[in-house]
Amino acid sequence: MIKTAATGTTALLLPKIVHAAMNETASTNAAKRYKLSKGDVILFQGDSITDAGRKREDEATPNSPSAFGVGYALFTAASLLANHPDDGLNLYNRGISGNKVFQLAERWDNDCLALKPNILSILIGVNDFWHTKTGGYTGTVETYATDYQKLISQTKSALPNVKIVILEPFIIRGGAALGNTWETDFAPYRNTAKKIASDNGLIFVPLQSVFNEALNHAPANYWGKDGVHPSIAGAQLMSQAWLKAVL
Amino acid sequence: MIKTAATGTTALLLPKIVHAAMNETASTNAAKRYKLSKGDVILFQGDSITDAGRKREDEATPNSPSAFGVGYALFTAASLLANHPDDGLNLYNRGISGNKVFQLAERWDNDCLALKPNILSILIGVNDFWHTKTGGYTGTVETYATDYQKLISQTKSALPNVKIVILEPFIIRGGAALGNTWETDFAPYRNTAKKIASDNGLIFVPLQSVFNEALNHAPANYWGKDGVHPSIAGAQLMSQAWLKAVL
Repeated sequence: MIKTAATGTTALLLPKIVHAAMNETASTNAAKRYKLSKGDVILFQGDSITDAGRKREDEATPNSPSAFGVGYALFTAASLLANHPDDGLNLYNRGISGNKVFQLAERWDNDCLALKPNILSILIGVNDFWHTKTGGYTGTVETYATDYQKLISQTKSALPNVKIVILEPFIIRGGAALGNTWETDFAPYRNTAKKIASDNGLIFVPLQSVFNEALNHAPANYWGKDGVHPSIAGAQLMSQAWLKAVL
Repeated sequence: MIKTAATGTTALLLPKIVHAAMNETASTNAAKRYKLSKGDVILFQGDSITDAGRKREDEATPNSPSAFGVGYALFTAASLLANHPDDGLNLYNRGISGNKVFQLAERWDNDCLALKPNILSILIGVNDFWHTKTGGYTGTVETYATDYQKLISQTKSALPNVKIVILEPFIIRGGAALGNTWETDFAPYRNTAKKIASDNGLIFVPLQSVFNEALNHAPANYWGKDGVHPSIAGAQLMSQAWLKAVL
């Protein structure tokens, strides 16, 4: 923990794990950080990790507790709303469980472009890999790369000023749902997401580094039992990493 | 916001509202703060603000996302778990919507003493007042004071080392459910909770001050539409205040 001289309290210390994991990336990202403006729209997009059990029938109302599920999008929204009350932010979660990148593309007009986000946060990729193992999906990492780049290009063309945040897809080593070769086999997907961010000048949130560092403190069971879906603790780490990378 | 020299980032700044609202109380509380130990049990108790839609059938499992609802207890649990992963904390939420202090007493053996909490956090009082207006409840502020003191005495006798945290019951001025005289009429309940904390040497979290300060930045609608049940933003403020007061 990094102690703040300002208060002398140990209560609101900066989280040690994200700092340890993100020191390097933080400096790479520094020039890309976003300064919030009044009325900004912030959209979280992705799969089940973003969805996190949200009530989709409530999704049209920004900042609605039921529309956020219980995951990193909720924790990030809560922090942004509590810490920037003068900005009148409008936050949406449109993650859908099971989605791969091509499925984001299929619903992009309604679930992204129509909302005109100022910040668009995307976490996608674990199903592009996982469903080849369990779901009979035949897409490859090249499919993922091509579809992801197409989605980004289309988004930048429709919303030239949007700040896009790419969250690294990750696995939590030791999780119950992971096969033995996942760490190796999934790496190209992680690297693809990172390359997409770098090629397009986007903010990158290195979640694999964050979870790797987290595992030095507690086992997979603590951060996300199955190795894919984070616990409360894991989701909060993701949120801290997001805030550190984006603002 | 208080900027931290350690990172130079604006991302993980300390929240300005709780700092502005709690500077005075923070020093009063300083000597009472709790140092977490391995395996500590932390219990959140209260009414609907604590309950926050939790799934009661999942309540036996500590740290379960579904058992926490979406409120300050969830946000506090998430922060504690993410920031203290080496401690193996066990957190429970046993708030029940509609409860008054005598109803906590009725279920105290099962829902508090049996869990042997190291930290017991209590937020109770708004229904002890509200239900006299709308529910035909005939208890007075003296009933609240007597019942609350009895609950604390019983708890300290059963669990001599428990660290008890009293959250100030509050209203969010301008909320839609509040009557015109609520601010005046509810004050004795708030003061009673504060006196209970002070008489018994307990940590006090001045939530009314926090929400009063919050209203300088955004209206009641932003922090909790009806003036009683906090929004995501309001719940996150409560969590920040809890962490600042307790740890």
